[in-house]
This record gives sequence, structure tokens and C-alpha cells, in this order.
Amino acid sequence: MLRLLSVNFRGITEHKTLLKLKFSTSSVMAKSKFEYVRNFELDDTCLRNCYIVVRLDGRNFHKFSEQHNFMKPNDNRALGLMSRSARSVMEELEDITIAYGQSDEFSFVFKRSTTWFKRRASKLMTHVASQFSSSFVYYWKEYFGEHPLLYPPSFDGRVVLYPSNRNLRDYLSWRQADCHINNLYNTAFWTLVQKGGLTTTQAEERLSGTQAADKNEILFSEFNINYNNESPLHKKGTTLIWEKVNETTTKQIKRPDEVETEITVTRTRKKVTSHSCDIIGEQFWEEHPDILESDQC
Amino acid sequence: MLRLLSVNFRGITEHKTLLKLKFSTSSVMAKSKFEYVRNFELDDTCLRNCYIVVRLDGRNFHKFSEQHNFMKPNDNRALGLMSRSARSVMEELEDITIAYGQSDEFSFVFKRSTTWFKRRASKLMTHVASQFSSSFVYYWKEYFGEHPLLYPPSFDGRVVLYPSNRNLRDYLSWRQADCHINNLYNTAFWTLVQKGGLTTTQAEERLSGTQAADKNEILFSEFNINYNNESPLHKKGTTLIWEKVNETTTKQIKRPDEVETEITVTRTRKKVTSHSCDIIGEQFWEEHPDILESDQC
Amino acid sequence: MLRLLSVNFRGITEHKTLLKLKFSTSSVMAKSKFEYVRNFELDDTCLRNCYIVVRLDGRNFHKFSEQHNFMKPNDNRALGLMSRSARSVMEELEDITIAYGQSDEFSFVFKRSTTWFKRRASKLMTHVASQFSSSFVYYWKEYFGEHPLLYPPSFDGRVVLYPSNRNLRDYLSWRQADCHINNLYNTAFWTLVQKGGLTTTQAEERLSGTQAADKNEILFSEFNINYNNESPLHKKGTTLIWEKVNETTTKQIKRPDEVETEITVTRTRKKVTSHSCDIIGEQFWEEHPDILESDQC
Amino acid sequence: MLRLLSVNFRGITEHKTLLKLKFSTSSVMAKSKFEYVRNFELDDTCLRNCYIVVRLDGRNFHKFSEQHNFMKPNDNRALGLMSRSARSVMEELEDITIAYGQSDEFSFVFKRSTTWFKRRASKLMTHVASQFSSSFVYYWKEYFGEHPLLYPPSFDGRVVLYPSNRNLRDYLSWRQADCHINNLYNTAFWTLVQKGGLTTTQAEERLSGTQAADKNEILFSEFNINYNNESPLHKKGTTLIWEKVNETTTKQIKRPDEVETEITVTRTRKKVTSHSCDIIGEQFWEEHPDILESDQC
Repeated sequence: MLRLLSVNFRGITEHKTLLKLKFSTSSVMAKSKFEYVRNFELDDTCLRNCYIVVRLDGRNFHKFSEQHNFMKPNDNRALGLMSRSARSVMEELEDITIAYGQSDEFSFVFKRSTTWFKRRASKLMTHVASQFSSSFVYYWKEYFGEHPLLYPPSFDGRVVLYPSNRNLRDYLSWRQADCHINNLYNTAFWTLVQKGGLTTTQAEERLSGTQAADKNEILFSEFNINYNNESPLHKKGTTLIWEKVNETTTKQIKRPDEVETEITVTRTRKKVTSHSCDIIGEQFWEEHPDILESDQC
Repeated sequence: MLRLLSVNFRGITEHKTLLKLKFSTSSVMAKSKFEYVRNFELDDTCLRNCYIVVRLDGRNFHKFSEQHNFMKPNDNRALGLMSRSARSVMEELEDITIAYGQSDEFSFVFKRSTTWFKRRASKLMTHVASQFSSSFVYYWKEYFGEHPLLYPPSFDGRVVLYPSNRNLRDYLSWRQADCHINNLYNTAFWTLVQKGGLTTTQAEERLSGTQAADKNEILFSEFNINYNNESPLHKKGTTLIWEKVNETTTKQIKRPDEVETEITVTRTRKKVTSHSCDIIGEQFWEEHPDILESDQC
Repeated sequence: MLRLLSVNFRGITEHKTLLKLKFSTSSVMAKSKFEYVRNFELDDTCLRNCYIVVRLDGRNFHKFSEQHNFMKPNDNRALGLMSRSARSVMEELEDITIAYGQSDEFSFVFKRSTTWFKRRASKLMTHVASQFSSSFVYYWKEYFGEHPLLYPPSFDGRVVLYPSNRNLRDYLSWRQADCHINNLYNTAFWTLVQKGGLTTTQAEERLSGTQAADKNEILFSEFNINYNNESPLHKKGTTLIWEKVNETTTKQIKRPDEVETEITVTRTRKKVTSHSCDIIGEQFWEEHPDILESDQC
Repeated sequence: MLRLLSVNFRGITEHKTLLKLKFSTSSVMAKSKFEYVRNFELDDTCLRNCYIVVRLDGRNFHKFSEQHNFMKPNDNRALGLMSRSARSVMEELEDITIAYGQSDEFSFVFKRSTTWFKRRASKLMTHVASQFSSSFVYYWKEYFGEHPLLYPPSFDGRVVLYPSNRNLRDYLSWRQADCHINNLYNTAFWTLVQKGGLTTTQAEERLSGTQAADKNEILFSEFNINYNNESPLHKKGTTLIWEKVNETTTKQIKRPDEVETEITVTRTRKKVTSHSCDIIGEQFWEEHPDILESDQC
């Protein structure tokens, strides 16, 4: 359960369990006396043959978005940074086949047959939370330029297991439906405030009890905004997957007794690609049949 | 289980569950159709009346320390940054009464009666991992100056429960004994390499099978180093606790019809303080009786 | 979590939570003072959309079988009593769709969509263990007649979840393959002892290292026993399922002014039926398509 | 996790894992193909250094008590059988130091340092539920004579952990306070019905909203019953503990060349003893200091 091989700041790889046998001083005696505490660690292995979803949520991001003057209703810098951080998670951690994000949340799906970190829930969720958070700060400048990050932000995480493809797809559909509902509301709300001159309280009252059709109508008849033409990023959120991408490079080659010639080299490699499309319907899944594993296993 | 109150990048606080009732379009219908997936989330509440320890460990920090040219056997910038990040965790998250760190690991102890995040293990460990990681990147420059951080690092975490004060103290003693053993080994190892001119392989062989007394002897007789005089930070690691600190400020006060006078204002406030002392023996605990709660509860 | 409605030996149904409000004596005060201990109970809900298997194993049944002079290699009375007890479990507890038993073990499969006892693992397994054990003693006489039960036996239980039909069928196949291997060994072993005159030690040595083919050969060439003709109950174990059974009864009917006539009434009802057939191959599952639920859910 | 050593009805101890290596037929091949299903079993080890309480509750015991014509408000035969079954559990299972029962429930406390069944929750609770249930049927006749048991009853169980002596004592106090409250109510209720001639509905109305003092007053002034003089078994429930008991026997001894003499032999052995006393206050615990283990561990 614990690292036999300790790798640390002192820069040396060390076999701790072997070392234990080598020493005999009082402090080592002491250490062995304390080691029983290891046995208080409980196993939290995830059930096999289930998709493992880790979802992250920003902590106090309402306040965070105000303190950093995020644009309303959507801040593309923030959404870009969220996606960049999510890509960092996918590139660093094995076996995540799809990730979906919207607003201040991101979900990561480990393939159902993953054995990464022996499927230990704590390892999986803390690594995702940690890599995402350090990336968020690390890449901040790429998205916010000289607009400073005022303090280190935090994300909480959780693990949820889904036994079937249907369950997993319904989970992702749930998050995308949530994105849609919130974005329609927020678009209407901020249009009433920013273009209609209402106070936030007035806008809230105006929208109270309205249906989706009503909001579409307000946007269209009063502000000439067709919601269907709004940004797919805002309406659909961000889906990250692995795709094979052809990369073409040219090389100058010169063989002995020949003139130099230019040749084209095409290599295929897997890359994280970003999509803002519908993932509720069948089309996305038919186009990317490798994301899901068979239920027949 | 899930946030009723959604706070997000779009900058508006929204009552999701209420909204659900207000809409009736197909997409909302869809959302309610998917919401059953919430019920796959399992409860991971920590047993009451136990100390909750979250331990973080750096991922691939051997490589990380080499890529960032850490000093051997100890890099004070790195140790300082670890402590700074740990302090950030303590200041942001409630109910951590003591934290102990050494090398690339840090342990955080929540008080046994904490109800923070309803004692949900996943929330506790991901928040600690996230806040620590974002802080590590955020404060990097304070410790490494222009020496650049090459990529966002990652830490994994775990939760362990300890039912009694004895168990908790033995856990902390275990980590400090581990610090001692590793530091003595590493000090001897790198002295042999840096001052003795041995290769790392030769140093490893030289130390193979030696006891603590042997290492002390090598350091003293061959290099005139008394290990007891080495830095407490390296020998004992870092212990962070909350302490009441008196802060004295002076103010210029001028009442009508009086000459201006200077008065001294002393305020007491709680602050995270750092210690590199023995925490295995009784003294530390007698001096800080508020860290532990009674076993009689 | 706890019974609001207390039903007890005193023979009265009582609303405990309401009662709490009614009393105000010191003992009730005391009770409310103690009630915090309820919160130490942890949730153990089984993941949704998974088959829940409860397997029981006899405790110290080697000794039990010797003390009760069980026949070797198989005691049909004991096997019959095991099946009778399993049937009692199926009839008393909801949502068990199939049960499989061999030797001193029995597995019970709850349907993947069951909400019985809110899917709480502890409730499911203790009820199965309890009902099975009380039935084993209750029905003893039906199978062992005047041969007395010397002491109350015990069975331990466990819960295992299977997310897919394939996993569940592989579980049942695993148990039936185990039955086959053990029965072939035991048949050969006891034939060598009972008919071949070997001691148990000699029989063990004789069979050491032999393959299934070797054991078949020993039985056939030395004892003229064709293993294929052995009892299916012993080779395949016992599978219990629910089946619709037509029950035909005859009634005498006499209408006014008519002569009495006899009519036949056929009613269909669900009944637990017992099978000793192969459950590894496809045939059994094709013949009973209602046992499994679709993986597409 | 699974029995390497299979002990079964066929009466032979067999090393299953070794056997696997010996066979090579298709069915064995099949078995190894299926064995991956073992890995779906999840670990449910109980946290160390906590008391493990298993509580059993009768299932549908209101109906059971009516069908078996239990006396109201208390049936001593039923209470005796419950205690007898609990004693059977204590004698068969290791490390239970105290058990407490009232009405149709019984709680069993394993010592905090127990390693029985590797502290696996499922094994602990199913064994307790199983042994109790088989004993309940087995010993029925000792308490109910020719009054027949109509069907095999069932008990459900749960596991709760308590980290401190205070928590454990508060748990037991909670159950005994529950016993007191119910018994006072039931005594008043059935006295009103049996001696006062009220219908059950009238009795319920009469007691509605009454305090403990009111019930005592009704019993005393109307029926001349002093509740304090009621049976301790009914007021306090049953507490079972292990105690050292001196057993004295006499033997006739005759040495060569001496006349036969009678000598007295006193042996001390541990025995389960039954108590109907207060376990909320200090006295019981001071008189039996061995039940609890120190919190200082």
C-alpha cells in the first residue's frame, strides 16, 4: 500500500523496506514500532468493469469570477483555461478516454477496464484534482495575459461509477442538458441587464416562471438574438477525446551521389481534440466508436 | 448530494432545482430523464470521532527534482515551497489543526470532531490536493525566483482515520522517524559523493548494510561533520500548527484640543506557525495541549 | 435508517419518534442524549444497475459432516436440505431470480434493478444468512428424520456485485466448474477407498498429479464406473429459478336446476423450481430468458 | 480472499488452488477462465482500534409474536430464547465481550482489538446473524415446549463502529433507555387493556401525550402497580458477559494402602453470565473492568 521505493527531494531512489532491515538504532526501532499505523488505511478499490467518472467542481467560483472580472454570461478566457487544464489531465494520466466540461466543472471518464493506480478511488480523484489545479495556475497567463491571478483556486472532486454504456452516456447527457439550461437562462438574463437596461433583480423577476420558449422569444423579439446562432462552446460545453491526427513534415534528404531532394513524412499520432457538439444524440458516438467499450464484457 | 445552488463562470447564482420546475421544454424533460444517474454516487462519510488524516505525496518527484536541479541532499527552496503550500491549505480549509511535512510529502490532520464537508472523504482529500497543488505553482516564484517551473506537478492523496490520540501521535511519529532515517542516509550518501569524490554507485555500496551509528561515524571521522548539528529542518521536517500571536501596532491619535499622541495596540490573532522540532516525545504535545481532543469523548 | 415503527415481543406497534416527543422524564432526556450514536452507522448501499450476489458458505462443515455421519462422496439428505433452505430464502426475500448451490455453499442473485432494502449490503446479506440458517434447522427433520442435529450450524456470507450479464454468468460458471472438479476428484477418491480398499492416504497419493482424464480412466477401467452416468445433482449442483407452473384442480359445481358437474380449473402461478443442468453453456439461458436483464439499461 | 482449503459435504479437505495446477481438461481450463470474477469482491475491513457492534433485529416480529401467541406486554419464553441464542453466538464466535438484548433485538460487541475474520464486516455480521438464527430454531423447544414454531424466522443485522469507550457506552445506554421507555409504555398500555377493560384504541388514546410520571401514576393509583417493582428483565433487558466462575466438584480418591477419601476440586472457568441490571451508570462498569479496553491504545 505504501511506497516501497521512495523518491524524494533529496534526489535519491531508496528501497525503504530493505533499509528497515539494515538499521538497528533506536530511531529505527521506533519507526518499526510506529508502522502499525499503516494498517488503518482502508481499501477503496473501484468495482471492476465500470466506468470511473471523476468530476471536479470549482470551489467558491462565483466569488472567484467576480474578483477576476469574468465576462458575463460567459468568459472565453476562463473556459479556455478550464479546457487547457483538462487537456493537461488527459495527457498526464492514463486511460481517460473522454472528458466533458462546462462552466466551472469538468468530468473525466476512465475506461471501464482501466487498472491505473489499481483502480483506487482516492488515487484517481486526487491525481485528477491535483493535476487540474496546478495546470490551472500554470496556464493562467496563456489565457489571461497580464490580468493577474489573485490567489490559488481550489476544486473539489468525487468519483462515481457507471456499470453500463447507457448509464455513462446518460451521465454525460445530464451534464450537457445542465449546460444548455443554464446557458439559455444566463444569456437571457445578461441580455436583459446589459442590453435591456434592467437591474439584476428586475431581470430575475422577468425570467421567473418562464419556459425555454419564452426565453427564446424574449431574446428574439426584443433583442433580435437567435439563440440557435449563439456559440456552440457556450451552448454545448467542451468535449475532449483522443483522436488520431496525421502530422506531415518535410525533410531534406541527400544520398551520396544524388542531388538533395525534399520528402514528405506523414506520421499518425494520438492527440487530445476539443469539440463543442451535441453528445446526447447518437451521431457523436457513431463517429467515435472507440470511446465506449462493449457492454458484453 | 449535489449543489442546489449553482455558482459559475457565467457569474450568477442560480437555484437549479427550482429552475427544473419552471421549464417544460424537451431539453429539460431530457435533463430530468437523465438525473437518475445521480443515484450512482456512493456515500463515503468518514467515521465520527476519528482524526482524519489526508496525506499528499509528490508524483514522480525524483524526476521532477532532477529536472529542476534541486540541491542534494536537501533543497531548501523546495522545502520552503512545500511548507508555503501547506500553509495555504491550512488557511483555506477549516479544521486542520496540525500538518507535518518532509521531503515531497505532507500530512494534514483534521480535528476528530470536524464536520467540514460533512466528513466526506472525497471532498476532504480532493480539496487538500487541489489547494496544495495550485498553491505550489502560485508560490513557486517566491522560492525559486527566475528558475522556471517547467510543467505543472501533481500530488496524490489519501485519507486515513485514527480513532485515538495514541494512534494519531504514532502516525506522526512514523512520518518523523521516516524523515530521520532518510535524511541520515542521504546526508551520508551525498557527503561521500560531493566531498568524498565517490560515484553514486560507490557511495551506495559503501553505505550498504551500515547502521545509523556507522553513518554518524563516517560523517564525523571522515568529514568532520557532527550530524547532530545538521539543520533541524532537514532532521525533523516541518510541523505547522495554529498559534495565538500578539501583534503590536502603533497608532497616531489626536483628540480635539489635545496634542497628537502615539498609542500602542496589541491584538491577538491565530496564525499558522512553523516548527522543526521533535514531535515524537511528550514535550511538544505538552506545550501545545489544544491540538489533540480528549479520548474521553 | 432506524426503525421508526417498532414492532416487538410486547406485541404492539409503536411510533418511537413520536413517543420521544411525548415524554420528558430524565430517562428520556437520557435517551436523546445518547442518540448521537446513530450517526456512526455508515452507508453501504450497493452500486445501482449491478447484480447483487450473496454467497453463503458453511462454517466448519468438514467437522459438521463427520459429526453427522454424512455419506461420502455426497450426502443426498444434506444436499436436499441445502436446497430446501435456499428455496425458503427465495420465497421469503424479494427479487432473487436465481440461486446456485453445491457442497456446503449457496449463491443468491438479486436482480440488477432491485431496490429491496434500499440495496443496503448489510441488510441483504444478513437476511439471506439468517433465513437460510433458521430454515436449515427448521427443515432438518424432513431430510434427516430421527438422525439428530447435534448443534446449530453457522454460515458466513458475502456480497459481490457484477455489472454485466457476462460477469454474472461467468460467476455462476465459476461455481459450477468448481463443483465439477471437486466432484470428479471426490468420486475417484472415495471409490478408491470404499471399493478399492485403499486408505485415504493411499487414495490421495494415487490421485496426486492426475488429470481429469486419468480420474475418468481409473473409475472406468478399475471400477467400471462411467463418470458421465453419475448423478446430475452431484456433477452439476442445484440451480433454483422462478417458473410459471400450471396447477390444475377439479371442482364439483352444481347450479340450481342442473345436475352437479365437475369442472377443471387451471391456474398459473410462479414457483421455485430446481434444476441440475449445465448453466455454463447457452442453452439454459436461452430457455429462461427472464432471469437476466438487458445490459442496454 | 477465497477458501484455499475446501471443506465440504463430500467429507474431504482439498487444496483447491493446488488442484487447479494438476488438471488440464477443458472444464478446468474453463474454471481458470472464469476465476477473474473473484476480483469483483471488495474489501470491507473494519477500521482498527474501534469496537465493532453487530446489532440484530427481528424481521416482521410483530406478526411473528401474534402468530405464536406471545404474552403481552412481555413473553418470558421469547426473551429467554433470545438470550439463549445470544449465548450461543458468544460461545461460538470469538472476541465478543458483551451483548445486550431487549424485545426482538440483540447487540453484540467485539473487542476493539479483535482480529477475528480479519475484521471483515460481512463475515462478522453474517456469522452472528446465522448463528443466532439457527440457535433460535434449535433451542425453540427448550422455551416453548410443544408450542410449535410455525416457520423459520429471520433477523437482519448491521455493523456499527465505535472509536471510544464513551461512544460504546453511549450506544449501550441508548439501547437500554429505549428498553425502558418501551416497557413503561407497554406495561401501562396492556394493564389498561387487560385489567382496565379498555380496547386497544382506547388505551392508545388514554396514553397519548402522557409523560413517564403520568404512566407511573396511572399504574399506581388505578391498578396498585408500582412500576419500580416490575421485573428487572423487562425494565432493563438482558446483558451477557464473560465471567470467571468457580466450579466445585467432589472426587473419591483412593491411594494404595489408604482408605478412600473424598476431595473437593475447585476449577475456575469462563462462562457467559446473564444480568438484568442498569448499564447506563458507572457501577456496572466498575464491577466489570475487563469489558472495555483502554482508550489510551
